[in-house]
Amino acid sequence: MLDLSLPSGLRDLLPDHSAHLAELSSKLHDVFSRFGYRRVFLPTLERLDVVERGLSPAALADVMKFVEPGSGEVVAIRPDITPQIARLYAARPDALPSPARLCYDGPVLRAREARAGRPREVYQAGVELLGAGGASADAEALVLLARSLERVGLKAPRVEVGHARFAEAVMEAARLPERLRSAAWEALSRKDRAALAAAAAKGRGSAEAREAVPQLAGLFGDGALDRARAIARAVPEAAASLAETEAALRIARRRGVREVAVDLGEARGLGYYTGITFAGYAPGAGAAVARGGRYDGLLARFGRPGPAIGFAVDLEFATQALERVNGRGRGVRPRRASARGGRARARPR
Amino acid sequence: MLDLSLPSGLRDLLPDHSAHLAELSSKLHDVFSRFGYRRVFLPTLERLDVVERGLSPAALADVMKFVEPGSGEVVAIRPDITPQIARLYAARPDALPSPARLCYDGPVLRAREARAGRPREVYQAGVELLGAGGASADAEALVLLARSLERVGLKAPRVEVGHARFAEAVMEAARLPERLRSAAWEALSRKDRAALAAAAAKGRGSAEAREAVPQLAGLFGDGALDRARAIARAVPEAAASLAETEAALRIARRRGVREVAVDLGEARGLGYYTGITFAGYAPGAGAAVARGGRYDGLLARFGRPGPAIGFAVDLEFATQALERVNGRGRGVRPRRASARGGRARARPR
Repeated sequence: MLDLSLPSGLRDLLPDHSAHLAELSSKLHDVFSRFGYRRVFLPTLERLDVVERGLSPAALADVMKFVEPGSGEVVAIRPDITPQIARLYAARPDALPSPARLCYDGPVLRAREARAGRPREVYQAGVELLGAGGASADAEALVLLARSLERVGLKAPRVEVGHARFAEAVMEAARLPERLRSAAWEALSRKDRAALAAAAAKGRGSAEAREAVPQLAGLFGDGALDRARAIARAVPEAAASLAETEAALRIARRRGVREVAVDLGEARGLGYYTGITFAGYAPGAGAAVARGGRYDGLLARFGRPGPAIGFAVDLEFATQALERVNGRGRGVRPRRASARGGRARARPR
Repeated sequence: MLDLSLPSGLRDLLPDHSAHLAELSSKLHDVFSRFGYRRVFLPTLERLDVVERGLSPAALADVMKFVEPGSGEVVAIRPDITPQIARLYAARPDALPSPARLCYDGPVLRAREARAGRPREVYQAGVELLGAGGASADAEALVLLARSLERVGLKAPRVEVGHARFAEAVMEAARLPERLRSAAWEALSRKDRAALAAAAAKGRGSAEAREAVPQLAGLFGDGALDRARAIARAVPEAAASLAETEAALRIARRRGVREVAVDLGEARGLGYYTGITFAGYAPGAGAAVARGGRYDGLLARFGRPGPAIGFAVDLEFATQALERVNGRGRGVRPRRASARGGRARARPR
């Protein structure tokens, strides 16, 4: 019996599902192009020391890396395209004057499944606006994401905006003891007010900051901005993050983005993000169909300092959402370990 | 000074060139789809023992392979997509009834540059017709290639048809001594009649076959088919290959393929090909913009025997041809080691 299985965590995408994914990608690039974003193709492999500049030590553990037999160089299969774009932008100022609007499409690969059953290989289409900072660039990213989700036909897409520094500023102002910090972030990710309050009680920061810590668990939904404003008045260290978020939201709404909400208590690993962060959601997708944010520190690591913002659409999650809502295909229920995806069907020629 | 160079032999493709390449790919998939070919996405990595089934030992030396740290499995970055498609077709008879028409798009990677300055990573778009043999399937592939080259806007594209077994049948009938065989194939690749005649003189086969060997160097251009027919009359072992080639050509011409020629003396490493082989050429491209052929033995190696034929377009060679002919972009002249491609230009938004 032949064993035709794939390396663990990898999959084939069958015809119907693949067609939906390719169509989605093509529509996204139409929108990216209308907004002035220009496609680049970047290699599957990078030198590990280049990849390391763009990732946290934790993220680096999940990178597929190996020694090239020919050169002896340690290389990595790209785990993320944003640092590749940063590297390209830094290496080619002659070809890519600032600001540069670039977009890409392709798979990224991790060494392990992030969670059981999650694919290790993820197909992404994304954009990066390099060398542009401030509220208007932030809003451009939000508008482009909203238009992209509409254009591909997702029903009732929503954009949720947060900030990489807001909760962090509050946590820092509360001066939690070192040993409690990771538990507090963990509690925030569960939106566990009681655990946050218990940790905050041990803090050595201002009373206002310690009181604000459990409130971080409630910075989403109706009235979230008002509650965040109250926190920012009490904890001035958090005010700048909120102001950036509000400025971006204001411009995005003026440019017609309707379905936008805030979640300023997001605690996910924010990696290289330094400013607003955001995600796109749609009914039918098990997780965010897009994620992005501002990363004003990354370009400097590659030697061409400057602000930058971007996002990536997870083409499979977005395709699943479309398939479930439109009743096309069967989603991505696995049929066996080696292959999953939409069912093959007779199709008129 | 930061070193932002890429692993040797890898490159970035800059905006204009990338846009041309993406547009070309999109047009190709339009044609593939009109012919009933359905897209599949296949993973970047395969288990090495799966890749080995699809490749000759020589080709295997150029595969990027390494041990996965997590599983300890030896895996390979795909060097060729056709064996992946064969693996998928064999693993999923439930989803892919025969005949199956599949198409794909993506990069393949080799461990070394095939020639100095040639990229190790090649962007391909291709088709495979699985489970269909005979002249009409052969002709379908030729027609699809010809239509594809026209549709993408290549000026004066040509399709050249050969056969993996014609020259081989003649060489075998001439019964060259073992020690001269590789030199004879080498001479054929240089179209070196004198060297071929010298080798053939040492053969122990029929006089007709020995006389035919140097004539293999002249089986292209005007009258090539007549010369091949004369050989096939003298060397009956070669007749079946010629008949297959002529039948495919006849149907393809009837279906409107004009610019088609034969080269039955092609000596390139034919890998898994067993029947007609073919290539697409266009002015402005330094090499064939597409290559393909019939491979009736490959599917059996994956456990679902059957005939098959397909081809892959080299998206960069085809893009170069378009850029040179249309005067768009500057081709792919390298600017420095880390990046090459069309020049970035201001573009109206």
